[in-house]
Amino acid sequence: MPRPGRIGEFELIHRYFAPLARDFAGAGGLKSDNAFLPADPRHDLVVKTDTIVSGVHFLADEKPGVVAAKALRVCLSDLAAGGGVPYAYQLSLSLDRGWSERWVAAFARGLAADQRRYGIALSGGDTVVSPGPLTITITAFGRVARGKGLGRGGAKAGDELWVTGTIGDGALGLLVAQGKLEGPALEKRYRLPQPRTTLGPKLVGIAAATADVSDGLLADAGHIAEASRLAVHIERDHVPLSVAARRVIAADASLWASVLGGGDDYELVIAVPPSRRTRLLAAARDTGVKATHIGQFFRGQGVQLTIDGVPARATRKGYVHFF
Amino acid sequence: MPRPGRIGEFELIHRYFAPLARDFAGAGGLKSDNAFLPADPRHDLVVKTDTIVSGVHFLADEKPGVVAAKALRVCLSDLAAGGGVPYAYQLSLSLDRGWSERWVAAFARGLAADQRRYGIALSGGDTVVSPGPLTITITAFGRVARGKGLGRGGAKAGDELWVTGTIGDGALGLLVAQGKLEGPALEKRYRLPQPRTTLGPKLVGIAAATADVSDGLLADAGHIAEASRLAVHIERDHVPLSVAARRVIAADASLWASVLGGGDDYELVIAVPPSRRTRLLAAARDTGVKATHIGQFFRGQGVQLTIDGVPARATRKGYVHFF
Repeated sequence: MPRPGRIGEFELIHRYFAPLARDFAGAGGLKSDNAFLPADPRHDLVVKTDTIVSGVHFLADEKPGVVAAKALRVCLSDLAAGGGVPYAYQLSLSLDRGWSERWVAAFARGLAADQRRYGIALSGGDTVVSPGPLTITITAFGRVARGKGLGRGGAKAGDELWVTGTIGDGALGLLVAQGKLEGPALEKRYRLPQPRTTLGPKLVGIAAATADVSDGLLADAGHIAEASRLAVHIERDHVPLSVAARRVIAADASLWASVLGGGDDYELVIAVPPSRRTRLLAAARDTGVKATHIGQFFRGQGVQLTIDGVPARATRKGYVHFF
Repeated sequence: MPRPGRIGEFELIHRYFAPLARDFAGAGGLKSDNAFLPADPRHDLVVKTDTIVSGVHFLADEKPGVVAAKALRVCLSDLAAGGGVPYAYQLSLSLDRGWSERWVAAFARGLAADQRRYGIALSGGDTVVSPGPLTITITAFGRVARGKGLGRGGAKAGDELWVTGTIGDGALGLLVAQGKLEGPALEKRYRLPQPRTTLGPKLVGIAAATADVSDGLLADAGHIAEASRLAVHIERDHVPLSVAARRVIAADASLWASVLGGGDDYELVIAVPPSRRTRLLAAARDTGVKATHIGQFFRGQGVQLTIDGVPARATRKGYVHFF
C-alpha cells in the first residue's frame, strides 16, 4: 500500500524515468513491459528487466532452485507478452551476507534446468555480496521479427479481451503460502510461474496488444486500455478459474478481490480484433493453452467490471509489488 | 576479504555460472567484461551488467546525482573496454524503505546529465522497494562493428601492456573519503569515474585485448594474461601517477599497495602488438587521453612486478569488490 506522501511505481516512472527514455524509440515511453532493440536484419531484441527481493517478491525460505526459476520466469512471461522467443539473459546476483556455496550451486542448477526448458542461455552478469536481502535482477532478451514486437498500446475499440489459462491462482497461492488458506495446487502456482513462452511468439500478427498478468488482471488489462487510450470491460463471471480457485471462492466470495486484483498469475491478457479470433484459438490450441474471452475494449477510459451483467465497482488497484 | 570456507567471485563464476553460458558464443565463457549479441547487420551489441550497493560500492551518504553517474559510468567503462559506443541501458532501482521522491528526482537528473554527456538513453527497467540498502543494477548496451568487439583473451606473447590516464587515484580517493588520507582531487576521482568512452571504440583494430581497471591494475592486467594464457610483466616505476597520488606516495610508500592493488580507476589496460603502437598513440592523442607503456606479455602465467627492474612479489589480490 502506498504510504501517505509517497507516489506509486507507475507515477514514479512517468515523472522521472519516462523522460529519460523519450529519445529511444524502442523504449515505447516505458509504457510497455518490454524494450525493443534492433537485432539482426530480420529481428528485434525484446528486452525485459525484473528485480525480485527475498521476503518481498518470494518467500525468504524459498528453495534456491525455485528462486532461480521464479527470477527467470517472471522475465520470460514479459518476453512472451512481447512476442519474443527466449534467447539470452544477464544475471545480477546480490547475495546476502549469510550466503553459502551450497545455495549458489542449487540456484545454478535451477537456472540450468530452466535454460534447457526454455531454450535460453546466460550471456553475462555480476555477483556481489550485500548487507541486504538476497536480490536478483535479470535482464532477459528474446527475439521477435523486426518491428513486430507486441506491446500494450495497440488495442482498438471493438477488440476483444482474452486471457490465457486460469486467473487468481497466483494471489490465492500466496495466501496459502502465508498459511491463510489451504490449497497445495494454488501454492505451487504462486511459487513457480509457468510463463506462456510457446503461445507468446505465435500471437505476433494476431494480437493487437498484450500484457502479462503480473500486477493483477484488472491492473494489467487496465494498462493495455490506458496505453491504447481506451476503456475495457470485464465480465467477472467469464474470468476462468482453476478447480482449486473455484473451491476456495465457493467457501469465501470475498476472495474474488484477490483473484481480480492480485498478481503473479503470469498468464497473458490479449486484445484481439474479432476478425482474428479464429486464429487466436488455433494458436492457443496448437500450444495447448486455454484462451478465454472475458471482455472488450471500447471508447473511453478506465476498467469496467460487471458481475453477471450488473456493473460493479472496479479499481485497478491490486497487489502492488512496489510497496 | 574472503571468509574461511568461502570461495571468491571469480571461482564462483567459474564453477557455477560459466557452465550456464557454455553454449552462448557471445558470452565468451564469462571471461571478459562484456557479452556480445548480434545487432543489426553491421553491428554487435556489447552488453554489460553491473550492480552497486550503498555502503559497499559507494558511500551511504553519497549524493543521488553522483550515485546515478557512478552506476552508469562503471558500465560505460566496461563498454569502452569492449570497444563499444554507448547506446542504451536498462535500469533496476531497488530503493531502501526510507526513499524519498526528492532523492529519486535528483537521481534521475544525474542520469539525464550523463545521458547527454555520453549519448546514451534509458530503454527500460524495474523499480522496487526493498528492506535492504539502495541497490542499482544497470545493464548497458554499446554498439561495435560486427565481430570486432574487444575482450580479454586476444593478447599474444610480445604484445605491450599500456594503460590510460593515471592509476591509483580511485583507491587512494576511497582512503580520502574514509578520512584516512588528504587529497580532494583523489576523492573526486573515486566518487566520479571518468570512463574512457571516446578512446575505447577507437581501439578496435588496434588493441589485441583490453580490460578496464575496476578490480585493480595488477588484477585486471592479470585477467588479460589469464584469458590469453600468458604471463604479464609490469614495471612499477612506469605506472603513471597523478600529481596528487605522487604526493601522498612520497609521504608514505606503503600506499603503492593501494595504487597497484586497489580498484575503481576506470582506466583501460590494453594489450597492443608493437607494430600497432603508433596507431595506439595516435588514437590516444586524438581523444585527449594519456597512454603509457608499463609492461609486456610473455609466455607463462601470472603477473610479474618489477620495481626499477628488480623483481618484487606481486599478488593479483587487490581490493576485491565481492566481499
